[in-house]
Amino acid sequence: METLRTIEEVREWRATGELGFVATMGALHEGHASLVRASAGANARTLVSVFVNPTQFGPNEDLAKYPRTLEADLELCKTAGADAVFTPDNAMMYPEPYRTWVEVEGLTDRLCGASRPGHFRGVTTVVTKFFNIVQPSRAYFGQKDAQQALILKRMTADLNLPVEIVICPIVREPDGLAMSSRNRYLSEDERKRAVGLSKALTEVRKLFESGTRNAGILRGQLITTLDDYVDKLDYAEVVSAEDLQPVNEIEGPTLVAVAAFVGGTRLIDNVILVDRDS
Amino acid sequence: METLRTIEEVREWRATGELGFVATMGALHEGHASLVRASAGANARTLVSVFVNPTQFGPNEDLAKYPRTLEADLELCKTAGADAVFTPDNAMMYPEPYRTWVEVEGLTDRLCGASRPGHFRGVTTVVTKFFNIVQPSRAYFGQKDAQQALILKRMTADLNLPVEIVICPIVREPDGLAMSSRNRYLSEDERKRAVGLSKALTEVRKLFESGTRNAGILRGQLITTLDDYVDKLDYAEVVSAEDLQPVNEIEGPTLVAVAAFVGGTRLIDNVILVDRDS
Repeated sequence: METLRTIEEVREWRATGELGFVATMGALHEGHASLVRASAGANARTLVSVFVNPTQFGPNEDLAKYPRTLEADLELCKTAGADAVFTPDNAMMYPEPYRTWVEVEGLTDRLCGASRPGHFRGVTTVVTKFFNIVQPSRAYFGQKDAQQALILKRMTADLNLPVEIVICPIVREPDGLAMSSRNRYLSEDERKRAVGLSKALTEVRKLFESGTRNAGILRGQLITTLDDYVDKLDYAEVVSAEDLQPVNEIEGPTLVAVAAFVGGTRLIDNVILVDRDS
Repeated sequence: METLRTIEEVREWRATGELGFVATMGALHEGHASLVRASAGANARTLVSVFVNPTQFGPNEDLAKYPRTLEADLELCKTAGADAVFTPDNAMMYPEPYRTWVEVEGLTDRLCGASRPGHFRGVTTVVTKFFNIVQPSRAYFGQKDAQQALILKRMTADLNLPVEIVICPIVREPDGLAMSSRNRYLSEDERKRAVGLSKALTEVRKLFESGTRNAGILRGQLITTLDDYVDKLDYAEVVSAEDLQPVNEIEGPTLVAVAAFVGGTRLIDNVILVDRDS
């Protein structure tokens, strides 16, 4: 496996043939490994980027303390089947005077976008840049970031980016906690309570499967359960899985998404509800 | 020469090898022909797009009456050496719900950007889309749209678009009028007065060449001459050719740019002043 440090090295390494791409901020876990494996199974070669993208962090967020674990990340990429890892730095990705931004309207102002203004603009911009640098055939993202997945699909279609977006299932710890680089922030007690997000979503899914279609009832259950576990709810929403608009009665595919603080750590999780008959 | 009507046809037509691209809104003239010839001389194949991009027109602008002359455009492209012309329609370029925009900050809010809010957002978005559809090696734009040229270069660098931007010189009528699709709007009297833009710029260039370095004096001369010809001045600016910031004394490469109405037609023109010694 090669480690590429500059854009020029990526362009040289790049060759014809199917290329899979996994964009990460490092601090890799089994969720990322599943993306790399999915890519390695479907493409001649796979490139993973490791870049803590400053433009997707708000001024009061955890950019400075975001975990950096490059040695372990390289090992995980290699084991999962990556052919190259690209580790650019800030000056390379955002040379002064940097001026250009990619924005997706409408999908970015709710859920995580409401509590993290500018976050998705940073994500869509850096992903566009990576797509142009790497020029992959396919790019793999996790369903854990459900809103990001929807936004990146919309962006790719709107801008005619010649990349197939593949969304992979959430990977969970044995007790149900969705894997996240930010789980490392959790103390022992917080780690136990963090399971509340997936517990609450599982209850909602069961309620849905037993016939409940009223979004208010599902949301009420969600919030009640979360209250027992988390320190502060950011949002708990029942929205259309297509355009993120709130729904009253569940008809089409529906995204149930939560964000909550456990201690000082903001965690997110979600489930998609789909009628088996529809 | 082939005429391609859909994005799929372009992707199929596209092949490996050097591909030159010229983005146009049709109503082609000798200025466009010079871009096509430049591309045909430097690339294995050349594709020209003809698309009146609605997102770069303001609500009170001339989208509806913008000249459409497809048959003549195809003939000009063929004669100038194009291998294919791509003629998408609005529904193909902006399928509902369209949500994604590319914006270049700082360079877009002055000169034409000040009088045409949203104009450059439409330009940068559609050019990004065309770059992703066509995937050219090089793209050719005219110096007549000096601000656009600067913005597209910045965008291409910022987003790491794998395209070389080539800016070609302004092509002028024998009396000096810069060629423009909008020149067809001019009545006989207006056509005569339209020469005022290039006349004023030529005088400024001469003043500069005879030693004047004070931007206020140059700008004063520009406005005085324009007043004799045009019906309404939009702007007449002396700015840095690098970042479009106004300058007081001319030191580095300087853009002298004007926009003015002759009758109801808005015309633009510019000259770049460079010290031969520097």
